[in-house]
Amino acid sequence: MTRAANPQNATITTPSDRTIRNERIFNAPRDRVWQALTDPALVAQWWGRGNKLVIERMEVKRGGHWRFVEHGPEGSHGYEGRYREVTPKERVVQTFEWDGMPGHVAVETLTLEDLGDGRTRLVNVSLFHTTEERDGMLHSGMEQGLNQSYAALDKVLAALN
Amino acid sequence: MTRAANPQNATITTPSDRTIRNERIFNAPRDRVWQALTDPALVAQWWGRGNKLVIERMEVKRGGHWRFVEHGPEGSHGYEGRYREVTPKERVVQTFEWDGMPGHVAVETLTLEDLGDGRTRLVNVSLFHTTEERDGMLHSGMEQGLNQSYAALDKVLAALN
Repeated sequence: MTRAANPQNATITTPSDRTIRNERIFNAPRDRVWQALTDPALVAQWWGRGNKLVIERMEVKRGGHWRFVEHGPEGSHGYEGRYREVTPKERVVQTFEWDGMPGHVAVETLTLEDLGDGRTRLVNVSLFHTTEERDGMLHSGMEQGLNQSYAALDKVLAALN
Repeated sequence: MTRAANPQNATITTPSDRTIRNERIFNAPRDRVWQALTDPALVAQWWGRGNKLVIERMEVKRGGHWRFVEHGPEGSHGYEGRYREVTPKERVVQTFEWDGMPGHVAVETLTLEDLGDGRTRLVNVSLFHTTEERDGMLHSGMEQGLNQSYAALDKVLAALN
Protein backbone atom coordinates (compact mmCIF):
# COMPACT_ATOMS: atom_id res chain seq x y z
CA MET A 1 0.00 0.00 0.00
CA THR A 2 1.34 3.43 -0.90
CA ARG A 3 1.56 5.92 1.90
CA ALA A 4 -0.08 9.19 0.91
CA ALA A 5 2.39 12.06 0.74
CA ASN A 6 0.00 14.56 2.29
CA PRO A 7 0.74 14.63 6.03
CA GLN A 8 -2.94 15.33 6.64
CA ASN A 9 -3.83 11.93 5.25
CA ALA A 10 -4.42 8.97 7.51
CA THR A 11 -1.74 6.34 7.88
CA ILE A 12 -3.26 3.05 6.78
CA THR A 13 -1.61 -0.29 7.58
CA THR A 14 -2.52 -3.98 7.72
CA PRO A 15 -1.22 -5.35 11.05
CA SER A 16 -2.56 -8.85 10.35
CA ASP A 17 -4.26 -10.67 7.50
CA ARG A 18 -7.75 -9.82 8.73
CA THR A 19 -7.24 -6.24 9.93
CA ILE A 20 -6.90 -2.70 8.63
CA ARG A 21 -5.55 0.02 10.92
CA ASN A 22 -5.77 3.73 10.32
CA GLU A 23 -4.26 6.53 12.37
CA ARG A 24 -4.77 10.28 12.09
CA ILE A 25 -3.92 13.25 14.29
CA PHE A 26 -6.51 15.98 14.72
CA ASN A 27 -5.77 19.55 15.81
CA ALA A 28 -8.34 19.56 18.58
CA PRO A 29 -8.54 18.40 22.19
CA ARG A 30 -9.90 14.95 22.85
CA ASP A 31 -13.20 16.19 24.30
CA ARG A 32 -13.99 17.97 21.05
CA VAL A 33 -13.05 15.00 18.91
CA TRP A 34 -15.27 12.77 21.04
CA GLN A 35 -18.12 15.24 20.65
CA ALA A 36 -17.73 15.32 16.86
CA LEU A 37 -17.68 11.50 16.73
CA THR A 38 -20.74 10.91 18.88
CA ASP A 39 -23.15 13.85 18.43
CA PRO A 40 -25.40 12.92 15.47
CA ALA A 41 -25.81 16.57 14.44
CA LEU A 42 -22.03 16.83 14.08
CA VAL A 43 -21.51 13.39 12.53
CA ALA A 44 -24.00 14.39 9.82
CA GLN A 45 -21.60 17.21 8.88
CA TRP A 46 -18.52 15.11 8.17
CA TRP A 47 -19.20 11.36 7.83
CA GLY A 48 -20.73 11.73 4.35
CA ARG A 49 -17.71 13.61 2.94
CA GLY A 50 -19.90 16.42 1.65
CA ASN A 51 -22.81 14.17 0.67
CA LYS A 52 -26.11 14.42 2.49
CA LEU A 53 -26.14 11.99 5.40
CA VAL A 54 -29.36 10.81 7.01
CA ILE A 55 -28.79 9.36 10.47
CA GLU A 56 -31.65 6.92 10.95
CA ARG A 57 -30.35 5.48 14.23
CA MET A 58 -27.40 6.37 16.44
CA GLU A 59 -27.70 5.05 19.99
CA VAL A 60 -24.17 5.52 21.31
CA LYS A 61 -24.21 2.95 24.12
CA ARG A 62 -23.46 -0.74 24.54
CA GLY A 63 -26.01 -2.70 22.52
CA GLY A 64 -27.28 0.39 20.68
CA HIS A 65 -27.65 0.38 16.92
CA TRP A 66 -26.56 2.87 14.29
CA ARG A 67 -27.70 3.27 10.68
CA PHE A 68 -26.62 6.00 8.27
CA VAL A 69 -27.73 6.56 4.68
CA GLU A 70 -25.43 8.62 2.47
CA HIS A 71 -27.12 10.29 -0.49
CA GLY A 72 -24.52 10.99 -3.18
CA PRO A 73 -24.73 12.06 -6.82
CA GLU A 74 -24.53 8.42 -7.92
CA GLY A 75 -27.12 7.04 -5.53
CA SER A 76 -27.69 6.19 -1.91
CA HIS A 77 -25.70 3.86 0.30
CA GLY A 78 -26.77 2.51 3.66
CA TYR A 79 -24.40 1.55 6.45
CA GLU A 80 -25.22 0.09 9.84
CA GLY A 81 -23.94 -1.66 12.89
CA ARG A 82 -24.12 -1.97 16.63
CA TYR A 83 -22.11 -0.66 19.56
CA ARG A 84 -20.21 -3.30 21.49
CA GLU A 85 -18.40 -0.99 23.93
CA VAL A 86 -18.55 2.74 24.58
CA THR A 87 -16.01 4.31 26.95
CA PRO A 88 -16.62 8.07 26.77
CA LYS A 89 -13.76 10.10 25.28
CA GLU A 90 -11.55 7.01 25.01
CA ARG A 91 -12.86 4.10 23.05
CA VAL A 92 -15.70 2.79 20.92
CA VAL A 93 -16.02 -0.77 19.62
CA GLN A 94 -18.75 -1.19 17.02
CA THR A 95 -19.70 -3.30 14.06
CA PHE A 96 -19.79 -1.98 10.50
CA GLU A 97 -21.74 -3.32 7.55
CA TRP A 98 -22.51 -1.83 4.13
CA ASP A 99 -25.91 -2.59 2.55
CA GLY A 100 -24.12 -3.51 -0.68
CA MET A 101 -22.56 -6.51 1.05
CA PRO A 102 -25.13 -7.42 3.70
CA GLY A 103 -23.99 -9.83 6.37
CA HIS A 104 -20.32 -9.02 5.86
CA VAL A 105 -19.50 -7.48 9.22
CA ALA A 106 -16.30 -5.82 10.44
CA VAL A 107 -15.60 -4.96 14.08
CA GLU A 108 -14.09 -1.49 14.47
CA THR A 109 -12.12 -0.51 17.57
CA LEU A 110 -11.61 3.25 17.74
CA THR A 111 -9.40 4.84 20.37
CA LEU A 112 -8.59 8.49 21.09
CA GLU A 113 -5.30 9.52 22.68
CA ASP A 114 -4.91 12.99 24.20
CA LEU A 115 -1.49 14.21 22.99
CA GLY A 116 -1.37 16.91 25.69
CA ASP A 117 -0.78 19.78 23.27
CA GLY A 118 -4.32 20.35 22.13
CA ARG A 119 -4.09 17.55 19.58
CA THR A 120 -5.64 14.09 19.57
CA ARG A 121 -4.52 10.86 17.94
CA LEU A 122 -7.32 8.70 16.53
CA VAL A 123 -6.59 5.03 15.84
CA ASN A 124 -9.17 2.74 14.29
CA VAL A 125 -8.60 -0.98 13.75
CA SER A 126 -11.11 -2.99 11.67
CA LEU A 127 -11.27 -6.77 12.07
CA PHE A 128 -12.92 -8.80 9.29
CA HIS A 129 -14.13 -12.41 9.30
CA THR A 130 -11.88 -13.28 6.35
CA THR A 131 -8.84 -11.94 4.51
CA GLU A 132 -10.97 -11.72 1.35
CA GLU A 133 -13.39 -9.33 3.05
CA ARG A 134 -10.45 -7.28 4.36
CA ASP A 135 -8.93 -7.08 0.89
CA GLY A 136 -12.29 -6.14 -0.62
CA MET A 137 -12.46 -3.19 1.76
CA LEU A 138 -8.86 -2.16 0.94
CA HIS A 139 -9.69 -2.10 -2.77
CA SER A 140 -13.04 -0.34 -2.38
CA GLY A 141 -11.66 3.19 -2.43
CA MET A 142 -11.78 3.30 1.36
CA GLU A 143 -8.53 5.29 1.63
CA GLN A 144 -9.85 8.19 -0.42
CA GLY A 145 -13.21 8.10 1.33
CA LEU A 146 -11.58 8.00 4.75
CA ASN A 147 -9.37 10.96 4.00
CA GLN A 148 -12.33 12.94 2.66
CA SER A 149 -14.28 12.19 5.85
CA TYR A 150 -11.35 13.15 8.07
CA ALA A 151 -10.81 16.40 6.12
CA ALA A 152 -14.47 17.23 6.69
CA LEU A 153 -14.04 16.33 10.36
CA ASP A 154 -11.11 18.79 10.54
CA LYS A 155 -13.51 21.55 9.48
CA VAL A 156 -16.15 20.53 12.02
CA LEU A 157 -13.50 20.55 14.77
CA ALA A 158 -12.19 23.96 13.71
CA ALA A 159 -15.71 25.36 13.96
CA LEU A 160 -16.11 23.88 17.45
CA ASN A 161 -12.91 25.45 18.80
CA MET B 1 -16.28 -32.45 22.85
CA THR B 2 -18.30 -35.53 23.75
CA ARG B 3 -20.61 -36.85 21.12
CA ALA B 4 -24.11 -37.28 22.50
CA ALA B 5 -25.23 -40.90 22.56
CA ASN B 6 -28.77 -40.14 21.42
CA PRO B 7 -28.79 -40.58 17.63
CA GLN B 8 -31.38 -37.83 17.40
CA ASN B 9 -28.86 -35.30 18.71
CA ALA B 10 -26.92 -33.09 16.37
CA THR B 11 -23.29 -33.90 15.62
CA ILE B 12 -21.25 -30.90 16.70
CA THR B 13 -17.63 -30.44 15.57
CA THR B 14 -15.03 -27.68 15.34
CA PRO B 15 -13.51 -27.86 11.84
CA SER B 16 -11.21 -24.87 12.49
CA ASP B 17 -10.30 -22.61 15.40
CA ARG B 18 -13.03 -20.08 14.54
CA THR B 19 -15.86 -22.38 13.49
CA ILE B 20 -18.53 -24.64 14.92
CA ARG B 21 -20.32 -27.12 12.65
CA ASN B 22 -23.49 -28.98 13.46
CA GLU B 23 -25.22 -31.64 11.42
CA ARG B 24 -28.61 -33.26 11.92
CA ILE B 25 -30.87 -35.47 9.80
CA PHE B 26 -34.60 -34.75 9.76
CA ASN B 27 -37.29 -37.24 8.79
CA ALA B 28 -38.94 -34.92 6.27
CA PRO B 29 -38.40 -33.97 2.64
CA ARG B 30 -36.29 -30.90 1.94
CA ASP B 31 -39.24 -28.73 0.86
CA ARG B 32 -40.85 -29.22 4.26
CA VAL B 33 -37.66 -28.49 6.15
CA TRP B 34 -37.15 -25.33 4.13
CA GLN B 35 -40.72 -24.28 4.93
CA ALA B 36 -40.23 -24.84 8.66
CA LEU B 37 -36.98 -22.83 8.59
CA THR B 38 -38.32 -19.82 6.71
CA ASP B 39 -42.03 -19.42 7.54
CA PRO B 40 -42.19 -17.18 10.63
CA ALA B 41 -45.37 -18.86 11.89
CA LEU B 42 -43.54 -22.20 11.90
CA VAL B 43 -40.23 -20.85 13.22
CA ALA B 44 -42.13 -19.45 16.20
CA GLN B 45 -43.14 -23.04 17.04
CA TRP B 46 -39.67 -24.52 17.36
CA TRP B 47 -36.86 -21.95 17.57
CA GLY B 48 -37.65 -21.03 21.19
CA ARG B 49 -37.49 -24.68 22.40
CA GLY B 50 -40.90 -24.41 24.03
CA ASN B 51 -40.47 -20.82 25.18
CA LYS B 52 -42.62 -18.09 23.68
CA LEU B 53 -40.85 -16.58 20.67
CA VAL B 54 -41.74 -13.15 19.31
CA ILE B 55 -40.54 -12.67 15.74
CA GLU B 56 -40.06 -8.93 15.41
CA ARG B 57 -38.46 -9.07 11.95
CA MET B 58 -37.83 -11.91 9.53
CA GLU B 59 -37.23 -10.76 5.97
CA VAL B 60 -35.83 -13.91 4.35
CA LYS B 61 -33.97 -12.35 1.42
CA ARG B 62 -30.51 -10.96 0.76
CA GLY B 63 -30.04 -7.87 2.91
CA GLY B 64 -33.12 -8.55 5.00
CA HIS B 65 -32.98 -8.44 8.79
CA TRP B 66 -34.24 -10.84 11.41
CA ARG B 67 -34.85 -10.29 15.11
CA PHE B 68 -36.35 -12.79 17.55
CA VAL B 69 -37.08 -12.36 21.26
CA GLU B 70 -37.37 -15.51 23.34
CA HIS B 71 -39.40 -15.16 26.54
CA GLY B 72 -38.35 -17.84 28.99
CA PRO B 73 -39.03 -18.46 32.68
CA GLU B 74 -35.76 -16.70 33.58
CA GLY B 75 -36.21 -13.66 31.39
CA SER B 76 -36.13 -12.52 27.80
CA HIS B 77 -33.33 -12.83 25.29
CA GLY B 78 -33.08 -11.00 21.98
CA TYR B 79 -31.25 -12.33 18.93
CA GLU B 80 -30.78 -10.70 15.57
CA GLY B 81 -28.89 -10.65 12.32
CA ARG B 82 -29.09 -10.15 8.60
CA TYR B 83 -29.39 -12.41 5.58
CA ARG B 84 -26.32 -12.47 3.34
CA GLU B 85 -27.53 -15.10 0.86
CA VAL B 86 -30.82 -16.96 0.43
CA THR B 87 -31.01 -19.82 -2.10
CA PRO B 88 -34.47 -21.34 -1.66
CA LYS B 89 -34.51 -24.93 -0.36
CA GLU B 90 -30.72 -25.15 -0.44
CA ARG B 91 -28.77 -22.56 1.48
CA VAL B 92 -28.99 -19.57 3.80
CA VAL B 93 -26.05 -17.44 4.95
CA GLN B 94 -26.92 -15.07 7.76
CA THR B 95 -25.38 -13.28 10.69
CA PHE B 96 -26.21 -14.09 14.31
CA GLU B 97 -25.85 -11.87 17.36
CA TRP B 98 -27.19 -12.23 20.90
CA ASP B 99 -28.22 -9.04 22.74
CA GLY B 100 -26.18 -10.20 25.74
CA MET B 101 -22.98 -9.81 23.71
CA PRO B 102 -23.83 -7.01 21.29
CA GLY B 103 -21.44 -6.53 18.40
CA HIS B 104 -20.12 -10.09 18.61
CA VAL B 105 -21.30 -11.45 15.28
CA ALA B 106 -21.10 -14.95 13.84
CA VAL B 107 -21.80 -15.82 10.22
CA GLU B 108 -23.93 -18.95 9.84
CA THR B 109 -24.00 -20.97 6.63
CA LEU B 110 -26.89 -23.43 6.61
CA THR B 111 -27.31 -26.01 3.85
CA LEU B 112 -29.99 -28.61 3.24
CA GLU B 113 -29.26 -31.85 1.40
CA ASP B 114 -32.10 -33.98 0.03
CA LEU B 115 -31.20 -37.56 0.98
CA GLY B 116 -33.64 -39.00 -1.59
CA ASP B 117 -35.52 -41.19 0.90
CA GLY B 118 -37.79 -38.55 2.39
CA ARG B 119 -35.08 -37.37 4.77
CA THR B 120 -33.00 -34.19 4.76
CA ARG B 121 -29.53 -33.48 6.10
CA LEU B 122 -29.08 -30.04 7.66
CA VAL B 123 -25.55 -28.70 8.10
CA ASN B 124 -24.85 -25.36 9.78
CA VAL B 125 -21.37 -23.85 10.08
CA SER B 126 -20.82 -20.78 12.28
CA LEU B 127 -17.76 -18.59 11.71
CA PHE B 128 -16.68 -16.26 14.53
CA HIS B 129 -14.30 -13.29 14.45
CA THR B 130 -12.09 -14.84 17.13
CA THR B 131 -11.42 -18.22 18.74
CA GLU B 132 -12.45 -16.72 22.09
CA GLU B 133 -15.90 -15.89 20.75
CA ARG B 134 -16.18 -19.38 19.26
CA ASP B 135 -15.22 -20.96 22.59
CA GLY B 136 -17.66 -18.72 24.45
CA MET B 137 -20.45 -20.07 22.25
CA LEU B 138 -19.32 -23.68 22.77
CA HIS B 139 -19.48 -23.22 26.54
CA SER B 140 -22.79 -21.33 26.57
CA GLY B 141 -25.00 -24.40 26.65
CA MET B 142 -25.52 -24.16 22.90
CA GLU B 143 -25.47 -27.95 22.42
CA GLN B 144 -28.42 -28.51 24.72
CA GLY B 145 -30.30 -25.55 23.29
CA LEU B 146 -29.66 -26.69 19.74
CA ASN B 147 -30.91 -30.20 20.44
CA GLN B 148 -34.01 -28.84 22.13
CA SER B 149 -34.72 -26.64 19.12
CA TYR B 150 -34.18 -29.50 16.67
CA ALA B 151 -36.43 -31.81 18.72
CA ALA B 152 -39.14 -29.14 18.55
CA LEU B 153 -38.49 -28.84 14.80
CA ASP B 154 -39.02 -32.62 14.48
CA LYS B 155 -42.52 -32.14 15.90
CA VAL B 156 -43.32 -29.25 13.57
CA LEU B 157 -42.15 -31.33 10.60
CA ALA B 158 -44.22 -34.34 11.70
CA ALA B 159 -47.30 -32.13 11.84
CA LEU B 160 -46.61 -30.81 8.32
CA ASN B 161 -46.35 -34.27 6.76
